[in-house]
Amino acid sequence: MRRLRDMLRGAVQGGHYPDGQLPSEAELMASHQASRATVREALALLRAEGLIERTQGIGTHVVANPVKTSLPEAHGIIKPARDSMFNQRMRPRELDRSVVPAPTTVAERLGVAPGTPCLRLEYVALHNEEPVAVATNYVLFPEAGKLRDTPFVSDWYRLLDDAGVPLSDSEFVFDCELADAPLASVLGVREGSPLISMEQIIYDLAGRPFDLAFIHTCGERFRFVSRGHEELR
Amino acid sequence: MRRLRDMLRGAVQGGHYPDGQLPSEAELMASHQASRATVREALALLRAEGLIERTQGIGTHVVANPVKTSLPEAHGIIKPARDSMFNQRMRPRELDRSVVPAPTTVAERLGVAPGTPCLRLEYVALHNEEPVAVATNYVLFPEAGKLRDTPFVSDWYRLLDDAGVPLSDSEFVFDCELADAPLASVLGVREGSPLISMEQIIYDLAGRPFDLAFIHTCGERFRFVSRGHEELR
Repeated sequence: MRRLRDMLRGAVQGGHYPDGQLPSEAELMASHQASRATVREALALLRAEGLIERTQGIGTHVVANPVKTSLPEAHGIIKPARDSMFNQRMRPRELDRSVVPAPTTVAERLGVAPGTPCLRLEYVALHNEEPVAVATNYVLFPEAGKLRDTPFVSDWYRLLDDAGVPLSDSEFVFDCELADAPLASVLGVREGSPLISMEQIIYDLAGRPFDLAFIHTCGERFRFVSRGHEELR
Repeated sequence: MRRLRDMLRGAVQGGHYPDGQLPSEAELMASHQASRATVREALALLRAEGLIERTQGIGTHVVANPVKTSLPEAHGIIKPARDSMFNQRMRPRELDRSVVPAPTTVAERLGVAPGTPCLRLEYVALHNEEPVAVATNYVLFPEAGKLRDTPFVSDWYRLLDDAGVPLSDSEFVFDCELADAPLASVLGVREGSPLISMEQIIYDLAGRPFDLAFIHTCGERFRFVSRGHEELR
């Protein structure tokens, strides 16, 4: 059952049904040598994850259409490809921009004393007017001073550019979580949906961390692609 | 509430409570300027995700202790660091190793006709005897012929090495999902827990994809770290 689910998820997320219409249960049973119960269970799981919808008498169709983004582009460390969502294709909806004392977790990550003033900037990232992520960034001064009044027009790296804030390194730690009510509401997903959550730290040219972000993304809206080339092994 | 959850999750996953004991509700209320209801709700969410346990009269303690793994090591494209889990620190529990006709999704990803024979190898990856991932690999011939009888002693890249199968590139696509009953059982997590799922494609030295894997990992057991250095922007 798990294997069938892997296959169907791969096909749905990979765009293998160009018209968005899934094969019938009978066709899936035949092509995957699976029982009707197994096919139904796999489809129910994909439906619970918000990837497909089933309509009585009409069939099953794909609702998710994730955009793929290369991880280096998401890191903000390379010039984005022309068709990348990081090439001025996003729009932020700002929720908060205010100077606050750094909470303990933030302070520890950034190597400053708890309570050190920082700029908290919280926003929903929209792509094709759909929410793809929610982020809360905590930025130390002096960078915070440059960001405080800079208009936020597209993605985070464009904002840093516009504010004249250079970066050297960018680090993500990946995790997964369940959407709670506020996250589900702001992302337009069901409460309890699986999300990818990340902590990002951005470093200045001297290697000092100045920006910590907590980012929550929906896999059905966009997905990270990471490609590595053999070098040293 | 979401911000408090971000902070607590960061602290728990980052190992900021060395003895595993969280502060009391009263202390969390004071240090985060939050109401008791907010603190309780955030703790309940972390508990639902399997990160903490709460014991009446004793307090709240951390149950998750995730190991961090660099993404290039997980890609199998660099020599793993001495203390990496990819440095012979994993052990597989094989669930299946058999030659099967390639299912349609697999065949499309690998660029062969559906039904082309491939080796399906399914295993649980154990680290410190705890399951950290379940993977189903589909390997084309001739590589499959070399892998078929090679003892599987540690991680996938050791297996490829032992079988004399070189690789050039490795690609991950990241997604998230809910643990279904079979996955939850084999990973030892609650049904409905959030998981990171990945599709991996491994390429031979000529750039031909020969291996497709569906991988399911628990964020509470290990987490990917990706670091990028500014180059071209």
